[in-house]
Amino acid sequence: MGDMFNAIEEEPDQVVNYFKEMIPQYAADVIYEMYTDNAVDILAYAKAKDLNQYLELLPAEAAVEIRGMLHYQDKTAGAIMSTEYVAITGNQTVRSALHVMKKEALDAETIYYIYVIDDEENLQGVLTLRDLLTNDDDALISDIMNRPVMSVDVQEDQEEVAQTIRDYNFIALPVTNPEGKMIGIINVDDIIDVIDEESAQDYSGLAGVDVDNLPGNPWQAALKRLPWSLGLLILGITTAVVISWYQTLIQKDTLMVTFIAMVMGASGNAGTQSLAVSATRIADKDDEEESTAKMVANEALTGLIVGFFSGILFAVITGIWQQDLDFGLILGLALLIAVTISNVLGCLLPIIFKKLGKDASNVPGALVSTISDLLSALIYFGTIQIFWNLYH
Amino acid sequence: MGDMFNAIEEEPDQVVNYFKEMIPQYAADVIYEMYTDNAVDILAYAKAKDLNQYLELLPAEAAVEIRGMLHYQDKTAGAIMSTEYVAITGNQTVRSALHVMKKEALDAETIYYIYVIDDEENLQGVLTLRDLLTNDDDALISDIMNRPVMSVDVQEDQEEVAQTIRDYNFIALPVTNPEGKMIGIINVDDIIDVIDEESAQDYSGLAGVDVDNLPGNPWQAALKRLPWSLGLLILGITTAVVISWYQTLIQKDTLMVTFIAMVMGASGNAGTQSLAVSATRIADKDDEEESTAKMVANEALTGLIVGFFSGILFAVITGIWQQDLDFGLILGLALLIAVTISNVLGCLLPIIFKKLGKDASNVPGALVSTISDLLSALIYFGTIQIFWNLYH
Repeated sequence: MGDMFNAIEEEPDQVVNYFKEMIPQYAADVIYEMYTDNAVDILAYAKAKDLNQYLELLPAEAAVEIRGMLHYQDKTAGAIMSTEYVAITGNQTVRSALHVMKKEALDAETIYYIYVIDDEENLQGVLTLRDLLTNDDDALISDIMNRPVMSVDVQEDQEEVAQTIRDYNFIALPVTNPEGKMIGIINVDDIIDVIDEESAQDYSGLAGVDVDNLPGNPWQAALKRLPWSLGLLILGITTAVVISWYQTLIQKDTLMVTFIAMVMGASGNAGTQSLAVSATRIADKDDEEESTAKMVANEALTGLIVGFFSGILFAVITGIWQQDLDFGLILGLALLIAVTISNVLGCLLPIIFKKLGKDASNVPGALVSTISDLLSALIYFGTIQIFWNLYH
Repeated sequence: MGDMFNAIEEEPDQVVNYFKEMIPQYAADVIYEMYTDNAVDILAYAKAKDLNQYLELLPAEAAVEIRGMLHYQDKTAGAIMSTEYVAITGNQTVRSALHVMKKEALDAETIYYIYVIDDEENLQGVLTLRDLLTNDDDALISDIMNRPVMSVDVQEDQEEVAQTIRDYNFIALPVTNPEGKMIGIINVDDIIDVIDEESAQDYSGLAGVDVDNLPGNPWQAALKRLPWSLGLLILGITTAVVISWYQTLIQKDTLMVTFIAMVMGASGNAGTQSLAVSATRIADKDDEEESTAKMVANEALTGLIVGFFSGILFAVITGIWQQDLDFGLILGLALLIAVTISNVLGCLLPIIFKKLGKDASNVPGALVSTISDLLSALIYFGTIQIFWNLYH
């Protein structure tokens, strides 16, 4: 039963309801059989009353451990680590280490790595089962262990942990507390969950809708999308205000309205591309300070180039269609400016989010395109007005 | 050197250039030291002449294996599998299996699983090192092995393989050919690469720009974005044509232009949300046939609900602003229709992509919003025209 719950794919806040349906003692037994990290994930959603009941029914040691882990902050190494690992001391031999392995093999979540600790539980070295199997039975652990050992702090962000496991192809990674004591391990299967979660978040962020927890019916779906949809609609009033400023200009020649959607579309598209690229760069980057200015400059330049060629195409299309090359060139210039500004916007928003302590990947594409619409309206009618005044 | 190249983070098409800079025999030595799957990834980018030179300098057996794997299709199990694994037969004892392990431990990419094969190399069962360590040394492998063994076909899509490893928390998964012979294993670290690749693709698809291979300078970046930007600009001409149809209507009261951007923005946003949700549903779903119609119906209903409340808000805003409730109600109705249609559009496009044999996650958000702009223009001015004709 514990095994089944270890592998269960449902959301923890659902699974905790299954526990409620069980006799408490049975639920406690299942929890005890589960790996601690999985049990903690689920118990984080239990009501305080239920939680206390389960913990009282658990063996004291297990209860203390779960209580401790429930205090680790969400999305840190501590929250996803497991406390079932194999640890030995450096003065043991390979033979005695293999003996420990055999004894603990049934409980530990992974037995591929064996960690070497000293009397204060400080992490000293690591061995793989491969090392044990390929060394002489009488070899001393401290002579054959690998060191230094890469480890993560218990408060490390889970995304950083995922990156380390990914970069080094580890199957598990030890977790230490700030004093350097080993207190758990993070396994690669927990990291796959983190990667899935983070990538669903990035995708959801860009789309402006949570795709990780899809609701069952259209009412729930609509309720989840409404706040965001209504918010953007209200923000869109600013664009309506800008267009209303140019009523007199538009009345002089309503033809100019024909092409506003193309300029807004091209700018919105450029802004979204710039957003996706910038958010990815920020997420990938370790030393961000020196190159933020460079990133903005690069996106501005990319926008200028894309805007230049888009502007030429736009000028040719509108010029030929309207048999008026001057008009085409004015529109092309407006597009060039609008695309460049939107490119900078798409790059600035994730930088601003990051400065505010938010996740740079959480800037929705629709926020960029709504602000881009506003700026495009200003730039489009503004450019036409300037040239109108020059020539009429 | 082989270890360094196994862990190298650069793109294979870059790494192959390092080989070119080496003396061919040295390159062959490095290739020989590498795990076969990693070497094959890189050699897939080598020129035929260089490839043949390396293969001639390799031991015959290794050359045959690499040549064989180069023929597996990209993004299948065969292309990402490794051929370094430990296999034993069922009539061995735990002791002799451990002996085999010790001998092969240095070469195999993972020694956590030991596969049991018969004389025809058909996969019979699997053991973990844990099983070996916790069973008596004299136990017969066929008595203690786990069966049936979950395996994947060599032609299986890598995404399916990733899903299986994820669902069952495996560290490795055996690969069989169509006759059931075991021919390789896929390790969890290779699967993490697949998951990263697929999620970067989904994100890139939605954004309409490749974020997986970020170019170094603005020129390259612009060149990558230009085809897409120009293509959408050309598609946008259709929207301009639609708006030009309504010139006479717009001339009657240019005020209506003020709110077109809000309707296009709200519809585009709704369409993108619907796209992200639908593409995710399609990717997650196994039995798609029965519920495609239901998915479209659900999105239409979600669009109606979001459109209804957005329409009311829009009617109130525009009605109060223009001191004309009738005008507000007409605009609100237009928004309701436009949002609903865009929701259906965002859901239909990934379905159509899938039917055409393309990846449903590759529908760009900007394609949805460009088509949505066109439809919104039609619906917006069309609705106003109908009521104009009714009341004037």
